[in-house]
Amino acid sequence: MSLQDTSTSEETTEMGELVYIDGPKDLEFREYPVPSPEPHAVVTEVVRTNVCGSELHVWRGDHPLSDCVLGHEAICRVSDLGEKVTTDSAGQPISEGDLVAPVYFQTCQHCEFCRRGEFYRCENDYEHAGKSPEIWPHFHAPWGTHYYIYPNQHFYKLPEELLETPSLAAAANCALSQVKFGLDRTGIDYNDTVVVQGAGGLGLNATAYANERGAETIVIEGVDQRIERAQEFGADHVIDFREHESADARADKVHALTDGVGADVAVEVAGVPEAFNEGIELLRTGGRYLEMGNVRPGHTIDFDPGKLVRKSIDVTTAVEYDPWVLYESLEFLANTKDEYPYEKLLDAEYDLVDVEEALERSEQRDLTRATLVPHSH
Amino acid sequence: MSLQDTSTSEETTEMGELVYIDGPKDLEFREYPVPSPEPHAVVTEVVRTNVCGSELHVWRGDHPLSDCVLGHEAICRVSDLGEKVTTDSAGQPISEGDLVAPVYFQTCQHCEFCRRGEFYRCENDYEHAGKSPEIWPHFHAPWGTHYYIYPNQHFYKLPEELLETPSLAAAANCALSQVKFGLDRTGIDYNDTVVVQGAGGLGLNATAYANERGAETIVIEGVDQRIERAQEFGADHVIDFREHESADARADKVHALTDGVGADVAVEVAGVPEAFNEGIELLRTGGRYLEMGNVRPGHTIDFDPGKLVRKSIDVTTAVEYDPWVLYESLEFLANTKDEYPYEKLLDAEYDLVDVEEALERSEQRDLTRATLVPHSH
Amino acid sequence: MSLQDTSTSEETTEMGELVYIDGPKDLEFREYPVPSPEPHAVVTEVVRTNVCGSELHVWRGDHPLSDCVLGHEAICRVSDLGEKVTTDSAGQPISEGDLVAPVYFQTCQHCEFCRRGEFYRCENDYEHAGKSPEIWPHFHAPWGTHYYIYPNQHFYKLPEELLETPSLAAAANCALSQVKFGLDRTGIDYNDTVVVQGAGGLGLNATAYANERGAETIVIEGVDQRIERAQEFGADHVIDFREHESADARADKVHALTDGVGADVAVEVAGVPEAFNEGIELLRTGGRYLEMGNVRPGHTIDFDPGKLVRKSIDVTTAVEYDPWVLYESLEFLANTKDEYPYEKLLDAEYDLVDVEEALERSEQRDLTRATLVPHSH
Amino acid sequence: MSLQDTSTSEETTEMGELVYIDGPKDLEFREYPVPSPEPHAVVTEVVRTNVCGSELHVWRGDHPLSDCVLGHEAICRVSDLGEKVTTDSAGQPISEGDLVAPVYFQTCQHCEFCRRGEFYRCENDYEHAGKSPEIWPHFHAPWGTHYYIYPNQHFYKLPEELLETPSLAAAANCALSQVKFGLDRTGIDYNDTVVVQGAGGLGLNATAYANERGAETIVIEGVDQRIERAQEFGADHVIDFREHESADARADKVHALTDGVGADVAVEVAGVPEAFNEGIELLRTGGRYLEMGNVRPGHTIDFDPGKLVRKSIDVTTAVEYDPWVLYESLEFLANTKDEYPYEKLLDAEYDLVDVEEALERSEQRDLTRATLVPHSH
Repeated sequence: MSLQDTSTSEETTEMGELVYIDGPKDLEFREYPVPSPEPHAVVTEVVRTNVCGSELHVWRGDHPLSDCVLGHEAICRVSDLGEKVTTDSAGQPISEGDLVAPVYFQTCQHCEFCRRGEFYRCENDYEHAGKSPEIWPHFHAPWGTHYYIYPNQHFYKLPEELLETPSLAAAANCALSQVKFGLDRTGIDYNDTVVVQGAGGLGLNATAYANERGAETIVIEGVDQRIERAQEFGADHVIDFREHESADARADKVHALTDGVGADVAVEVAGVPEAFNEGIELLRTGGRYLEMGNVRPGHTIDFDPGKLVRKSIDVTTAVEYDPWVLYESLEFLANTKDEYPYEKLLDAEYDLVDVEEALERSEQRDLTRATLVPHSH
Repeated sequence: MSLQDTSTSEETTEMGELVYIDGPKDLEFREYPVPSPEPHAVVTEVVRTNVCGSELHVWRGDHPLSDCVLGHEAICRVSDLGEKVTTDSAGQPISEGDLVAPVYFQTCQHCEFCRRGEFYRCENDYEHAGKSPEIWPHFHAPWGTHYYIYPNQHFYKLPEELLETPSLAAAANCALSQVKFGLDRTGIDYNDTVVVQGAGGLGLNATAYANERGAETIVIEGVDQRIERAQEFGADHVIDFREHESADARADKVHALTDGVGADVAVEVAGVPEAFNEGIELLRTGGRYLEMGNVRPGHTIDFDPGKLVRKSIDVTTAVEYDPWVLYESLEFLANTKDEYPYEKLLDAEYDLVDVEEALERSEQRDLTRATLVPHSH
Repeated sequence: MSLQDTSTSEETTEMGELVYIDGPKDLEFREYPVPSPEPHAVVTEVVRTNVCGSELHVWRGDHPLSDCVLGHEAICRVSDLGEKVTTDSAGQPISEGDLVAPVYFQTCQHCEFCRRGEFYRCENDYEHAGKSPEIWPHFHAPWGTHYYIYPNQHFYKLPEELLETPSLAAAANCALSQVKFGLDRTGIDYNDTVVVQGAGGLGLNATAYANERGAETIVIEGVDQRIERAQEFGADHVIDFREHESADARADKVHALTDGVGADVAVEVAGVPEAFNEGIELLRTGGRYLEMGNVRPGHTIDFDPGKLVRKSIDVTTAVEYDPWVLYESLEFLANTKDEYPYEKLLDAEYDLVDVEEALERSEQRDLTRATLVPHSH
Repeated sequence: MSLQDTSTSEETTEMGELVYIDGPKDLEFREYPVPSPEPHAVVTEVVRTNVCGSELHVWRGDHPLSDCVLGHEAICRVSDLGEKVTTDSAGQPISEGDLVAPVYFQTCQHCEFCRRGEFYRCENDYEHAGKSPEIWPHFHAPWGTHYYIYPNQHFYKLPEELLETPSLAAAANCALSQVKFGLDRTGIDYNDTVVVQGAGGLGLNATAYANERGAETIVIEGVDQRIERAQEFGADHVIDFREHESADARADKVHALTDGVGADVAVEVAGVPEAFNEGIELLRTGGRYLEMGNVRPGHTIDFDPGKLVRKSIDVTTAVEYDPWVLYESLEFLANTKDEYPYEKLLDAEYDLVDVEEALERSEQRDLTRATLVPHSH
């Protein structure tokens, strides 16, 4: 670990630092010259960046990624605008010094899906994320002092309401955007009953968004602190699965709360395969199911297709999102920041130099979600 | 069996006959007075009526239904129009003597779903089907000389193009309408690749309909005669599962036929739970799956929700249909009767007096689908 | 006028009274026996009923309707449930004594549109409204002590939250349901900018509903009291057309409020044909226009179809609604009654005996909207 | 005019020629070096290119465009693939020598609309079209021997079925793609009645496409040859407006053809503002109107918004298309080339050297649509 002694940079070239991973739990601070942006690209200074589950996976070595820069969610300050960049990706005027949220993946613009405007399916969206920092422009991921926004990468100016609390905005990138994309595909009518299976980050954001669209929300959870959060994030009802131990009991409870009918919409964000079968029981005949928590193949359940058919249930899935959803999520945060305690979703702040401590405590679940602040900013 | 000797009716009252079931394989012809229709109801003479799988179930005793009249698909001739009936359910003028196709179920108009116009979910749609013929108006189902169309039951005049071949029209009621309803919910864009899992009645109709909407169709089947039918019903490609024995091999073949991409739409009409998993393999990323063959709960498979999510696949189901879909299906038949050999879907015709022979030969699979013609017509 | 002396009814038959119109400004109270309900019908006592613009038209003689009972919006108390009525039209259990909101029109269930579940287009929806009270069951409209809900007429139990303030619920029937139906057809995405042209009853309800769906709302109005109301009903911005006198100036203001882009959605509820052209200017390229205020044909404007095409604008219209929208509107009111001052939409209450005074003062615009309470309740 | 004497090019650099316009009816052949493609770009040889109405406008001087290369629709042969180009825009493998159809506009990928995948609204889509050929890469438009496909420009390989008749494919670019985009937005259900107002290029393509989606088609036209074409392109009925002279008479005829109901969908491709009002009369209550012929603002009609509302008609517009629609159009042509006489849409072929004659005869309407073939190919 070399951060403390990265003292000098050449007079003519500004240097920055980044967190490099060379194998399981093998991190290193490395120093590179801050690049000049290509046309349509933007160079930024990182203001804050989060520790998300995916970084834990890579750090632990559960994930093949290595020999690269870490991080994906961040809020950055524009330091160098590439030629032709006059607005952010939503058409809002942009200047040096502005705070922005970059989408954590790119759109290649040349694969079959990008060519059809279906950016959420881009086949090359992680093209830059796994690159070695030896390759220019070095700052491919945001755990560092700087971050490079590529020409085809979307980024959005922070709404004014969020300028004082940029840490909130960092949270929009992953969970909130994913949830908003999924729920918009599923469709929420006013006064729909939406049952959310699990009150983790995805579940809390889903509860708040469904609430703001006019739904009645039911959250299923079994941990005290998460139940409390669910209530703070707009749950009209919480079903505690310590009290309602079986899937049948929980389904009965949902039916009791809906005049015996069942929920209009269920959202699987528990991330356990068994939740899929339970969701079908929670829904009414003709209900809509958003399955988005089970993102890793390889775990099977006993499933009865005939039951799905008999109940006329449709299933929607969501695994990535269209990049402009981040813009909409930032607006959502700006509009609702006084209604929901988003700040509680981030419960620890570390100087970037203490990244290993942040990872270890996250690993031990001593904290929910940590944010990292580069020391020199 | 008493049909031959149902000789007399009172002078002033016309009598009709119907096929009554009193237990497994226990049929009887019974005679009742032909009723006069209530307002909005219609009394008809049955022109032809089919032997469908559901009648076989009831006859065998696999189904709790008993002490009732048999039959559900029929073409009838209007003999007595109830007060206020001037048009069919599509607003077409109707007169005595017209040939009509009645929807085989009713809409109660008073359940929560009917009240919302979601007739395909009516909670009382089989209210009359299981009644004893002792209850007025006796002719609750169409295996008989007469059939009573209730005030809230939809019925449609046969298009002129089908008047010479009413047997074709009888087929619209069940398979074609169900398939059209399902595919319209799923959505077929022009030039979508649609893979149909199974070339039974549902599958052949699905192939024809997808073809007429401009899709490229692939049918998976393993029986020579059905493969031939699939080709006659518009399949652009057939995958013979005797040649491609594993699900993987069939998925490979579908990918080979779609430039490595996979199908846009898959339609499960095989009616075996395992087909559900195979369908997911046949689809492209972002594909749409219509699951409609597995209509009976109780059979489970090993299913991996994470795979569904990773491929961003949405699932639509269909188990009943909105009654006006029958009107659309009749139009479809009228428009395409020279393109597809619908007549081959019905390969045997019996006088109604020979109903037991028709059932026994259907049971032994000596024929695909029989039609019954009441003797006196 | 005979209300005060309607003293006796036969011992065995309860009598009720109703407001009969025999020609322009020629009202009369008439007395009829309270009917017993047919199966599926409901007899009610009127709790309150509103004076709406359409009653003023009929009273003045601007409308051909005469020789009939007046009124259309009402809240009633169930006094006699017809055979087979165990729930309201949403499936909620119903008993004598319950407060209900009946939909002001019926669905005939037999026209082509009802047969397709498109109840909002029923061809016979006013079949009963114009009948003479001489025809049984007499109480065809709700200005009276009783009101008859026909077998095919939808009615909904008042949500518990509204039981204390049934006058609020009366307002749901007309303006709110119409607006909700229109906006749901148009579609409102979270954070859409919705501009509402006019802050009358439709406009205020549209503003509240758009607000609850997460839109940013702009209202255009020119009357002080209505501007104040718009703000109370959730308008984020009001454009006063006394300050922005030309359509161009108002369009400039909308563009200024939307970073130069224009509104995503515009809602025409001004009821003047010229507003249609202005709406097109207010919208962004690709915007959606809900035209619902101009309900009477016969007034033309100079319109440029090429401008509509060049701006890629789609137009949706709404003139009636599906009856179940009333249920959703009641839920909306129940959910939001503490957020918006619905009580201000009704600013006068009269005993039903004073109906003529209520009409005269409404005519003179001394009040916005009056509610009538039958004297004996 | 200098084409014949463009004899020499330097040994090391291939030269090409293009049609340059310097003012009204002032054309010139100019010679430039054939460029080498940037990464993601493609250099092509023009195989054929059409004379479309827009070229006539520019040539006449009705359009501000000047000092640029002419042309927009073309079929080209790939001569030089830029780095990274391995597939066309649909993901199909591409090689030198392949025939391709380039979309005639580009997507900038950086405006607000491109960033949202709404490519049909790109704000810079004609960025290159009006450039002087003095600016590299010179061949900005396809009237020439070569054409440069920009990195962000979509292009599609010709389906095998069209390789023998590339002239057909040239037609897909403009009319067919525009019509398909519009009709897909409007939605055509199976058996919808679609009335097409005008049998020009847009109208004939609309008729064929609606026909292939299963619609019943009615075309309104008044010129013998166009009526004949309409029948060849799948019109089920033609209304000759020389026989049905008034809009009312034509509306009566449409109602007569639809059991008194009116059309489900109307398509305005007449390009005269008055057609908009007529279309409303042709539609049924609740019909859908696609307005796409009036592309130039500035001409107004007397329009009655109340009539639109009373008939519950929704209006969709279409003025550009998403670039991948060209791919779908090519597939449509490939599938239906034996059913409709597309070749009749192009009734004259000229060597590119005779471009002025082609323009003059097009101007005099001696021909419908000419195609130009560069002499040296």
